[in-house]
Amino acid sequence: MNKVTLAEKFAQFTEHWRPKLVGELNGQEVKIVKVRGVFPWHHHESEDEMFLVWRGHFRVEFRDRVVNMGPGEMLIVPRGVEHRTAADDEAEVIIFEPRAVRNTGNVVDATFTAPNGVRL
Amino acid sequence: MNKVTLAEKFAQFTEHWRPKLVGELNGQEVKIVKVRGVFPWHHHESEDEMFLVWRGHFRVEFRDRVVNMGPGEMLIVPRGVEHRTAADDEAEVIIFEPRAVRNTGNVVDATFTAPNGVRL
Repeated sequence: MNKVTLAEKFAQFTEHWRPKLVGELNGQEVKIVKVRGVFPWHHHESEDEMFLVWRGHFRVEFRDRVVNMGPGEMLIVPRGVEHRTAADDEAEVIIFEPRAVRNTGNVVDATFTAPNGVRL
Repeated sequence: MNKVTLAEKFAQFTEHWRPKLVGELNGQEVKIVKVRGVFPWHHHESEDEMFLVWRGHFRVEFRDRVVNMGPGEMLIVPRGVEHRTAADDEAEVIIFEPRAVRNTGNVVDATFTAPNGVRL
């Protein structure tokens, strides 16, 4: 039961697209991630996924539209909906989703699929 | 699938200790709340609860210690652990917890127990 200071956690890593676990509750995980560039298209078969932008600008692209977000904006992507995430410049994002979700969903990608359960 | 801008949502109400639902995923709810003063002691029998401070200073008190938090700090209170929340000046807090949790947990309080499912 210790508090987590997000700025301290974000300062502990530099790599992009590698979520770090900072909290667990009710079978869900709270992760933080730094992003830059464009992530592969994918969907999650049975998990909804929430993104909350902490710093920078971040977007979630769907096949028919794009949702642009800045700090303090959040979006929930329902299960089954194809999407990809992207950021032109580095952004910091908080993710809330069920335990042990594969970050690339239905896709396995040599570059982007990240290990689970990496704690900070 | 619309984004939520937290500042806009917080601007839509003024009352304290009345959580507003801003998102739902995987059986969990994302709520925002304005707080000031001291909330009743309580626990949640089977739900863990997460607080993320958005603005101001907020504390979670346990029987044996106090966790003081500012913006960008979060704390997970495990199920069953007695606690109360407090803020000397108004603060804005994001809450993650399972659907339909009673805010006062095992306690029913005429002043503080708030209705569930109030959406913004």
